[in-house]
Amino acid sequence: MPTFTHRVFNFNAGPAMLPTEVMEEAKSEFLNYKGTGMSVMEMSHRGNVFQNILDESLSDLRELLELPSRYAVVYFPGGATLQFSAIPFNYLKSGDSADFAVTGVWAKKAFEEAKKFYPNVKSIFNGADSQYMELPTITDEILNEGAKYVYITSNNTIYGTRYKSFPKLKKAPLFADMTSELLSRKLPIEDFSVIFAGAQKNIGPSGLTLVIYDKEKLPTLDHPIPNLMNYALMEKNGSLYNTPPTYSIYIAGLVFKYLKRMGGLAVMEAINERKAKKLYDTLDASSLFYAPVPEAFRSAMNVTFRSHNNSLDSKFLTLAEEQGFAGLKGYREAGGFRASIYNAMPEEGVDALISFIKEFERTHG
Amino acid sequence: MPTFTHRVFNFNAGPAMLPTEVMEEAKSEFLNYKGTGMSVMEMSHRGNVFQNILDESLSDLRELLELPSRYAVVYFPGGATLQFSAIPFNYLKSGDSADFAVTGVWAKKAFEEAKKFYPNVKSIFNGADSQYMELPTITDEILNEGAKYVYITSNNTIYGTRYKSFPKLKKAPLFADMTSELLSRKLPIEDFSVIFAGAQKNIGPSGLTLVIYDKEKLPTLDHPIPNLMNYALMEKNGSLYNTPPTYSIYIAGLVFKYLKRMGGLAVMEAINERKAKKLYDTLDASSLFYAPVPEAFRSAMNVTFRSHNNSLDSKFLTLAEEQGFAGLKGYREAGGFRASIYNAMPEEGVDALISFIKEFERTHG
Repeated sequence: MPTFTHRVFNFNAGPAMLPTEVMEEAKSEFLNYKGTGMSVMEMSHRGNVFQNILDESLSDLRELLELPSRYAVVYFPGGATLQFSAIPFNYLKSGDSADFAVTGVWAKKAFEEAKKFYPNVKSIFNGADSQYMELPTITDEILNEGAKYVYITSNNTIYGTRYKSFPKLKKAPLFADMTSELLSRKLPIEDFSVIFAGAQKNIGPSGLTLVIYDKEKLPTLDHPIPNLMNYALMEKNGSLYNTPPTYSIYIAGLVFKYLKRMGGLAVMEAINERKAKKLYDTLDASSLFYAPVPEAFRSAMNVTFRSHNNSLDSKFLTLAEEQGFAGLKGYREAGGFRASIYNAMPEEGVDALISFIKEFERTHG
Repeated sequence: MPTFTHRVFNFNAGPAMLPTEVMEEAKSEFLNYKGTGMSVMEMSHRGNVFQNILDESLSDLRELLELPSRYAVVYFPGGATLQFSAIPFNYLKSGDSADFAVTGVWAKKAFEEAKKFYPNVKSIFNGADSQYMELPTITDEILNEGAKYVYITSNNTIYGTRYKSFPKLKKAPLFADMTSELLSRKLPIEDFSVIFAGAQKNIGPSGLTLVIYDKEKLPTLDHPIPNLMNYALMEKNGSLYNTPPTYSIYIAGLVFKYLKRMGGLAVMEAINERKAKKLYDTLDASSLFYAPVPEAFRSAMNVTFRSHNNSLDSKFLTLAEEQGFAGLKGYREAGGFRASIYNAMPEEGVDALISFIKEFERTHG
């Protein structure tokens, strides 16, 4: 394995690259946060210093997302997977149903987890029919009668697909796992009732999840809900029902401030679209590589690609690693390559990757 | 609030002080872990580098605890609170019962959470009768017929009590929340079937929990269990069923290596007992302060104390803060003071606190 004295261009899908200026700031106060004589990691979650970190992070996030006050924002531990269980516990009662668009591995896991507890939930789209290369058009007409909500994965990390625009529904509220794209673009928040995102792509360290939900649409159910899955309980306690992942919340807060300094989500969206477009353009013009996802469904966060000559794949990856392009291997279930170009990936990282791809094609194509 | 250019003696109950040499090591490789060109925080949990971190941390932990092979060790996200729900889901079926020794706030929460789902669980001890200053003697004779397990909190962080020796039971397996003392002393592991501990005291950052369980005693139940609570599923996937709190696991691994360098748990236990004894001796000899917990139940990790003159309490805390003794305020539900002296608190920190207490008594007593 090559070793580097500098930071590489890190295309990992998650845990993923964080902005270098955020990491440098965190490093500078790692042993002693603002004169407290201790790390944020070593600080009581009930003290004023941490409370300020938490409060600021939430207000910065609300500002970035322009959240109306009826939306609660709660930090949960545990990754999106915990929400796969929590959502049905919070929104369904025995016999209820909900509609799932199964557009990838994570949507399928969410669907199966809900089905374990609420056997009436239904799939309204099976992406396996297109090897998960396509997304459905979701309208009121295709929903099942009585569905309590419609569940989508807004960006599919593994296959590199995303909804360019989101469904507008009247018959049922829309819930979205936005793990791999929250904060990468502006959102029509009011079209959603629940949005959640594991932190490890665009937000911060893994083991933290943001849940945003419309308080007016949270039902009161009479079955027991495990405390760490209970939206109302966690919200009432201001994300401090138990000891939260404090250091991860701190890093997330630094990331939110970074995004504000960058100019907010409209600016990030423009940068992200530009980064993605130039990479897809390169792949579309290549005779050796290609992007398998149809243009209408291409993710701006996870650019998946393959080569026409699989015998060169391991050479491409080895050479990329050597030259400081890390994490380009595709997900085990998808194969090929994947460049995850989240907010933290600078445009020069994408430019460098494009040059590398072109050079590889020139010498091996 | 005073500001410091050096690290203070941090008596926080949790999140708590971590060994300064561990923090310095983590800081030195914060931006670039061993030449990878990225932080551990930015690394794929499926890559070799993180897998090695995870594997080494688990093998170091097994060595420290001298764990027999039939015990599984699994990292969970979410703190001990998630285990309050997970344990009954994994060990009880409808109609089953278990016995809980309610010796403090956390034991009560665990009991109430289990009761929500399994109404037959029973309390075998109510610490409220002694304002939680005393612990029960648990023998087979006091257990309820058919209890599937006996649940204890081995060290009660808030009240500062602990079991000096543990129950030896034949009628039911023993489960223990060891959040605030795991790794602080040697344990008769084989007397337990489940041990779990939130990381934020003696292990690492908050948001991570270690679960150790006897694989031979895990039942196979036919009801659904949320995936992130499912012991068998998490174990089968080597703590990587989903993206775990990778950075917290890395810090935990550094702490385990530190404990090995220190000489292991027998050495730590001797140091911890010495630290606690000199602090309790000081309080017992004081005319202004006293330790409310009877000697038989005194914790070596959380030394709670009070003053005979409450009008001096805020002065004591302010002066302590100013002089670099942080986190001495007692838990809101217990009042008074608390010095949490986990593994990471050096003996000179305790010595300095003792001098401060004596000086305060001399000038204000």
